[in-house]
Formats: sequence, C-alpha cells, structure tokens
Amino acid sequence: MDHAITVTTGLSFEEALQATRERLSDEGFGILSEIDLAATLKAKIGADLPPQVILGACRPPLAHAAIQAEPSIGVFLPCNVVVRVDDGGRTLVQAMNPEFMTQIASGAELAEVAADAKARITRALDAVAAAATA
Amino acid sequence: MDHAITVTTGLSFEEALQATRERLSDEGFGILSEIDLAATLKAKIGADLPPQVILGACRPPLAHAAIQAEPSIGVFLPCNVVVRVDDGGRTLVQAMNPEFMTQIASGAELAEVAADAKARITRALDAVAAAATA
Repeated sequence: MDHAITVTTGLSFEEALQATRERLSDEGFGILSEIDLAATLKAKIGADLPPQVILGACRPPLAHAAIQAEPSIGVFLPCNVVVRVDDGGRTLVQAMNPEFMTQIASGAELAEVAADAKARITRALDAVAAAATA
Repeated sequence: MDHAITVTTGLSFEEALQATRERLSDEGFGILSEIDLAATLKAKIGADLPPQVILGACRPPLAHAAIQAEPSIGVFLPCNVVVRVDDGGRTLVQAMNPEFMTQIASGAELAEVAADAKARITRALDAVAAAATA
C-alpha cells in the first residue's frame, strides 16, 4: 500500500495551496490545522527547506464513523494533506492514504470509511492537478 | 507494530492535557497544532464524543532529519498525540508510533530518527502516567 496519494501540478506553490483548500472543501473536508513546516523549521533551527505546508483535513461524518469503528484512530486524524515544492522545483500535493487506517484495525465499517475518504481526497487532488493543465 | 503508544493516567482530562504539553516540551517537542476533535464534531454534526484533543508535536531537528531521509514524510508530521477520555471514563494519552515511518521508507537515517522520536515520546507519556500515581 502506498503511504501517500501524490499529484504534481503546474500551479505555483501558493496557487496550489489555495486550490487544495478549495477542492478539499468541495469534497466536504474542513481544514482543522495548517502548519507551515518550512517556516517553522527555518525559525526553530535555521533549516532551509522548499516551501511546505501541512493541512489537517477532516470530514466530520467520516471522522466520527472512524472513531466509532476504532476509538484509537485519532492518532491518524485529521488527514494530512501536504503542499510542497520538491528539489526540482515542482509543486506536489500529497495526502496520507486513508487506507492506512485499515492496517491498524479491521472491520467493514472502517474499510468503508477509509475507501470513502480515499475517493474524496483523490478527487480533490486530481482536481488540483487538472487545474494546472486547464 | 503497534500503531500507537498508549498510557492511561489517573489525571483528569484537563490535567492530562496540560501535563502532556509540558512533558512533550521537556523532550524537545513543540506543539504546532491543537485540535479539539470532540468540540469540532459536536459543532459540525452534533456528535457527542468524550473529550478528545489532538496535539501536533514536532521536534524540529527530528522533523528535518526525517525530511532529508524521505521527502514525502510530511504526510506523517507532526507526530499526533491524542489526549482523550474513553467510554469507561479513563483518561488516555496516545501517540502515533513514530516507527510507523519505517514502514514507508527504509534506511538507517530514518530508522534512527524514528527510534529517537519513539524514545522521547515514550518518556513523555510515561511521565504523564507517573504523575497520576505520584
């Protein structure tokens, strides 16, 4: 199982960040946290990383169903969606693969939640990728 | 591999939340995000969950080393530490097991980062658990 769902986009970093917020919203995800990891590491230890922001995406009905199925699933919530620039200057959008949850706990309910979350996040990222070529 | 490192504590939820912040700080972790998941799900869909807060813990040198070893590791950063009350009224503190990162990418450097992070988080959680019996 891939640990991440990844798309590349021709959008700039800032454009991709905004497009990712919007397309996640279209799929019913709220952004519960937003961490500018590059700025944090620059401020704390002077490290120079390409731009990287981590969005914490949560679709409340899915999060609730996941917790009902597996009370300890919170350690993998919200679903991280990373917008970053790689060493080659490309803008990438990468999400944690929600199917990772099914490595932790089995059961039809959690599998259904994971599949729904994966489908929604994949659509959102594909829409960001498509925006680059429009 | 366990997906989470879990301790139970005799502290109240609020006491455990504060103790967790402090013990993580003792181990060099800053808190980059703090999500009140129970309040969020209550506000968004009216769900009644026991108290649950997700802290996003990051030790900058470890995060930087992890990214150098595996540029896509951001989807698992920061390290989630959940403080919650279970159905039996017990207060639990649970962290994502950093060794999960080694399922994604191999290499001695990432293994070393994961082991260091796990040791620090385990010490922090053990200190929270010990506070209950002091």
